[in-house]
Amino acid sequence: MVVVIDKPMATEDLLLLPFLFFLNSLYIEREEEEMRLHGTQLVNEQGHLEIGGCDTVELAKKFGTPLYIMDEAHIRDICQQYQGSFVKGMENAEVIYASKAFSTLAMCRIIDEEGLGLDVVSGGELYTALQANFPAARIYFHGNNKSREELTMAINAGVGRIVVDNFHEMSILNELAEDLNQRVNILLRVTPGIEAHTHEYIRTGQIDSKFGFTLSDGTADRALDLALSCPFLVVEGIHAHIGSQIFELDSFRHEVQIMIGYMSDIHVRIGYLLQELNLGGGFGIYYASGDEPAQITDYAKTVQAALEDACRDQKFPRPKIIIEPGRSIVGTAGTTLYTVGSIKEIPEIRKYIAVDGGMTDNPRLALYQARYEAVLANRASEETVESVSVTGKCCESGDMLILDIDLPKAISGDLLAVSCTGAYNYSMSSNYNRLTRPGVVLVAGGHADVIVRRETHSDLLRNDVLPARLK
Amino acid sequence: MVVVIDKPMATEDLLLLPFLFFLNSLYIEREEEEMRLHGTQLVNEQGHLEIGGCDTVELAKKFGTPLYIMDEAHIRDICQQYQGSFVKGMENAEVIYASKAFSTLAMCRIIDEEGLGLDVVSGGELYTALQANFPAARIYFHGNNKSREELTMAINAGVGRIVVDNFHEMSILNELAEDLNQRVNILLRVTPGIEAHTHEYIRTGQIDSKFGFTLSDGTADRALDLALSCPFLVVEGIHAHIGSQIFELDSFRHEVQIMIGYMSDIHVRIGYLLQELNLGGGFGIYYASGDEPAQITDYAKTVQAALEDACRDQKFPRPKIIIEPGRSIVGTAGTTLYTVGSIKEIPEIRKYIAVDGGMTDNPRLALYQARYEAVLANRASEETVESVSVTGKCCESGDMLILDIDLPKAISGDLLAVSCTGAYNYSMSSNYNRLTRPGVVLVAGGHADVIVRRETHSDLLRNDVLPARLK
Repeated sequence: MVVVIDKPMATEDLLLLPFLFFLNSLYIEREEEEMRLHGTQLVNEQGHLEIGGCDTVELAKKFGTPLYIMDEAHIRDICQQYQGSFVKGMENAEVIYASKAFSTLAMCRIIDEEGLGLDVVSGGELYTALQANFPAARIYFHGNNKSREELTMAINAGVGRIVVDNFHEMSILNELAEDLNQRVNILLRVTPGIEAHTHEYIRTGQIDSKFGFTLSDGTADRALDLALSCPFLVVEGIHAHIGSQIFELDSFRHEVQIMIGYMSDIHVRIGYLLQELNLGGGFGIYYASGDEPAQITDYAKTVQAALEDACRDQKFPRPKIIIEPGRSIVGTAGTTLYTVGSIKEIPEIRKYIAVDGGMTDNPRLALYQARYEAVLANRASEETVESVSVTGKCCESGDMLILDIDLPKAISGDLLAVSCTGAYNYSMSSNYNRLTRPGVVLVAGGHADVIVRRETHSDLLRNDVLPARLK
Repeated sequence: MVVVIDKPMATEDLLLLPFLFFLNSLYIEREEEEMRLHGTQLVNEQGHLEIGGCDTVELAKKFGTPLYIMDEAHIRDICQQYQGSFVKGMENAEVIYASKAFSTLAMCRIIDEEGLGLDVVSGGELYTALQANFPAARIYFHGNNKSREELTMAINAGVGRIVVDNFHEMSILNELAEDLNQRVNILLRVTPGIEAHTHEYIRTGQIDSKFGFTLSDGTADRALDLALSCPFLVVEGIHAHIGSQIFELDSFRHEVQIMIGYMSDIHVRIGYLLQELNLGGGFGIYYASGDEPAQITDYAKTVQAALEDACRDQKFPRPKIIIEPGRSIVGTAGTTLYTVGSIKEIPEIRKYIAVDGGMTDNPRLALYQARYEAVLANRASEETVESVSVTGKCCESGDMLILDIDLPKAISGDLLAVSCTGAYNYSMSSNYNRLTRPGVVLVAGGHADVIVRRETHSDLLRNDVLPARLK
């Protein structure tokens, strides 16, 4: 089934978007599905992929390729799904966007407008949030090795919570807080000994982590006792993160069980009542055929039910619940648009389609063997006729984007749209091979706004210095 | 054995460097070797690691950490070894530095001063070379998917050779050359069907490559015939690249044999005499204990002997030989200096030492399971007492730098120097987690010059744009 819209959407057509989301949630697809459509993606009557009411063929002409395209309505819809399921659907809960997935000024503004909090993991992400006027009180600061400068910056900015990861940080933080004469609200990151996988979860392994205080061996108890003895630290609660790209909701149920059990144990042991339980992120998304992510509403129901059960069993008062989705807010909202260049067919072995980007703008296949789907954006309604491999333009064999994908017979100059690139693509991009990083456009209601300008050659040399003796 | 030099080296002490290199070639090491010393690295009488006559403790104070340190004398020495073995030791040969390993203005100047050619793989690398006034005639332009803009830039600049990778490129190039009314000297990249490994080589597999024209199925013949029919293209020779980090010199012998055989076949088939044979790069270096790289002189001897044998066997006139080392020119000349922050010991499992950088400045463990060695730079003569894992500050479990390394008992504030990070570290670095990229200093004779400034937070937002409706 193809949804055809015969004109670019006007701003008022945004009112139609909930309907489109509904359609998309039914998995709009073609006879040969090479790319599931997400958010406002559709194929228009010219057979072009359209996102946010913008024809991608026009976007390529106007902004060049490679180009990251972010679907604003889709991002906002997911934020609203989270807010609806967790914040409105539950008493005392907060949803925090993990900005490491995609951190820009515009993204921080959208998150603020949608009422979510923000998780930052470095001075750079904090700087970005503050420059975007994101309210500091709704910022959570994470990280296993925060520097003195970063902690000072966070205290001065008045971030809502600093998630203390280790004893070294606790000691610096208390010292800085004392120097600045400011009480700091903290969460303690604990390692609960659960490791969640996409389809299963196991209870071991995760203990071998660089993050947090181990629950099982008493380290977390020692950390809490120490934190409570630090006059400038206010321990509001605890935090755990059990993995990424989790499809099995039972992992979260188990996490709640362990964490509430621990909070209850603390209360029994020392009489201290922790007020907040931050369950971290990890909610899985669809990248490619075979991925079967859960629904956000079911995620919320699972957490809510687990919380009720655990609090009842432990006779523990319900704490504030915080979750930290990153990938699931921006992942499916991002599409990378490339131009096809050289094509190499090796008979009986493989056909390579090379595009004008690569592992520089998306290193996730090289790093994690990630899978992606793609479509020829300028011929999106044509039937697929062959299986090809999509490679980039880096001088490196590992520079692959998609190992096998069905496409119409591509020719040089075609546009290739790779979907679900919104998370950990721009944020992990590099200048390897001295390739310039693509620009990012935010599309909605037929309009496209540049939110990150494409790098230029002179950007590459911006920080280069030639010592006099080498001139 | 520890070599102690009791004062920073003055410029005139550079005269001592050949002697130090000789010592280093004997593998200066301590009782417990946790890091082999390279180039001008030594441990001074304060027990500090010194590079280029600069005390790394002073470098950390002056320039901050993380910091890339490049050992100029070591780079120049390796260039001279290459020039001595290949160019002076052989008739008609050229050594081309593969700048994708590390491309900056200063590096291009050093390469020019040492008389090597330059291999670039993108418009960005070409731009860098041209901005450094590198003579265009000594530039080779590689890449599997060069754009029309890049090829135009290369023709206009007058680069010495364009290494044509595929039919699409050949067609664009001839068209552009005709438009610009300029003859272009090219090499054809072929895929010889050899895949070299560190310790072995096999003859299959490499055919499944995105690069080049396959020899075995006649594609290379068709490419040559077509190129010879393009009036604006001058086919000077052929190019092949058989792999990376190769320790087994026999791989190169085999490559020469196949390539000369092919050049001879062409001569027999159509009477065309190819003048140049570019053997690519791939010469392996030492990263960590167990790596046993060959000597550059032996590399040259192997190529020379193989060439003599093959030319004699095929009755083929000796072509010009070109090699393209990248990693082996800068790899062991680079050291990354970090400050130790948090330390987490998980009894009976692992001790994590976290530094102030990570996969953002060195993604090679995450990408290739690369191994590195390290030393506490401020306590480099102390005995090692424990095995630890070195991790970075990124919010990601895969953010590891070294899985297991013996060190003295490290404390927060210690400096950790990771060696052999000169190639593919700065060039692959990213701003993941919005970390700023480290600066690069070039050290020699007791002086340190910044050649790349450390990024600032404002650099991160340089290209960010906030659309009016989000303000």
